[in-house]
Amino acid sequence: MIEHTTRIRVRFGETDKMGVVYHPNYLAYFEIGRTEMLREAGLIYSELEKKGGALVVVEAGIRYRKSVGYDEHLQIRTRAAKVLRASLLFEYRAEKPDGTLVAEGFTRLGCVGKDMKPKRLPPEVHSILSETPA
Amino acid sequence: MIEHTTRIRVRFGETDKMGVVYHPNYLAYFEIGRTEMLREAGLIYSELEKKGGALVVVEAGIRYRKSVGYDEHLQIRTRAAKVLRASLLFEYRAEKPDGTLVAEGFTRLGCVGKDMKPKRLPPEVHSILSETPA
Amino acid sequence: MIEHTTRIRVRFGETDKMGVVYHPNYLAYFEIGRTEMLREAGLIYSELEKKGGALVVVEAGIRYRKSVGYDEHLQIRTRAAKVLRASLLFEYRAEKPDGTLVAEGFTRLGCVGKDMKPKRLPPEVHSILSETPA
Amino acid sequence: MIEHTTRIRVRFGETDKMGVVYHPNYLAYFEIGRTEMLREAGLIYSELEKKGGALVVVEAGIRYRKSVGYDEHLQIRTRAAKVLRASLLFEYRAEKPDGTLVAEGFTRLGCVGKDMKPKRLPPEVHSILSETPA
Repeated sequence: MIEHTTRIRVRFGETDKMGVVYHPNYLAYFEIGRTEMLREAGLIYSELEKKGGALVVVEAGIRYRKSVGYDEHLQIRTRAAKVLRASLLFEYRAEKPDGTLVAEGFTRLGCVGKDMKPKRLPPEVHSILSETPA
Repeated sequence: MIEHTTRIRVRFGETDKMGVVYHPNYLAYFEIGRTEMLREAGLIYSELEKKGGALVVVEAGIRYRKSVGYDEHLQIRTRAAKVLRASLLFEYRAEKPDGTLVAEGFTRLGCVGKDMKPKRLPPEVHSILSETPA
Repeated sequence: MIEHTTRIRVRFGETDKMGVVYHPNYLAYFEIGRTEMLREAGLIYSELEKKGGALVVVEAGIRYRKSVGYDEHLQIRTRAAKVLRASLLFEYRAEKPDGTLVAEGFTRLGCVGKDMKPKRLPPEVHSILSETPA
Repeated sequence: MIEHTTRIRVRFGETDKMGVVYHPNYLAYFEIGRTEMLREAGLIYSELEKKGGALVVVEAGIRYRKSVGYDEHLQIRTRAAKVLRASLLFEYRAEKPDGTLVAEGFTRLGCVGKDMKPKRLPPEVHSILSETPA
């Protein structure tokens, strides 16, 4: 399975009044990691959409370990953990540059058509995400 | 010209690390005021969209007077200040419940089709927003 | 255990390019439900903060069942499922007005001091959230 | 006066149901440009905060010229247009990589202390932002 690391920097507007990253924003960070991973693997999400398909998040989970503040660097490590017929499981670690775990989680994605109904994943997603057949 | 007042309460995620409303969020608050005003006047924006039209913000300005924090109440006062052939000017005041001015601003909106090209405002927008016929 | 229902309406800025609520925003919706529940139960979160305490999300999980779009109504049903010494478990259902399940999830919260280190929950949180003494 | 260019890429969650960047997000983009400019000039905003000062936006204006969608690249060009005793004027252009203007605007910032009351700008801000004395 492929892995990927994306680097981001916490933006001012991503903090909340506790001075740390507002907790829902980690789902957006994970999405950035996932998108960058797919792009680097050769799957450009905006092109998948042009073909009428879309990947939607059907389940998500996060454990928050440390808080980080404005201007801090994070590396988002993304792993395509399971590539099935109709769903994908991604796992994530948000880490400080020294490797300290900040948050970890997963998202499970399904593929839907323009009618928002489930459909099988396009074959190129499979071949891109699996080193070995699924 | 019609006027409207909407009441909102500052959400946790709308604050930033200074403990007050993150400044871009006032544009979202103004949008809530505008949408509510149009709805109450009988123009349901989601229905305008179904007909293939959309109102887009082409210019915005804000002056920030006071900061407000989490859980505080705000009243958004919206006024349709100018209703022209192809554009609308809305003016806003965000106030504390006692009338203290927190922020004031405007947005100018234009009408576009599905191709994102400018088109004339639908006649019902005119008749709804103007006391006198357009 | 206490339960609570909050009604919200999907804002324009809460949607994404798929035309439906951007998935991380459900965590913000759940937070609104939780805050309103605590407020109604007599625990004003902003006052808890003044005493130097804060409730932080330490774990979250969501299952997305249906998508909803701009302007749709949602009711957020919140339940204080477990009230322990140092943590609280809240469960949520985001539903359409007719009861259709849109998303369901949970958040586990811990209490921290100004130094962001864990501390026991203030006794008033226990007595408010538990029907039986803590 | 110093100028600076920052490159960003439109994130999925920054779009709205029209499929383009949600209009308030440009104020966040401008902030990224301003922060990066100040950092590169040697003023680390998070350190200014540790000294008890903060720069707050007191006025903002934007003209929206073109819409851009998910995954598109933008360059944010920031210019410190006026450096006065108690306020700073920044001007911005958000451009596509080929230079096409997407949005342009300004923000006026003031300096406040921890009590949120105005105070003079720290001298290092002046010396950093002005090539010639203010």
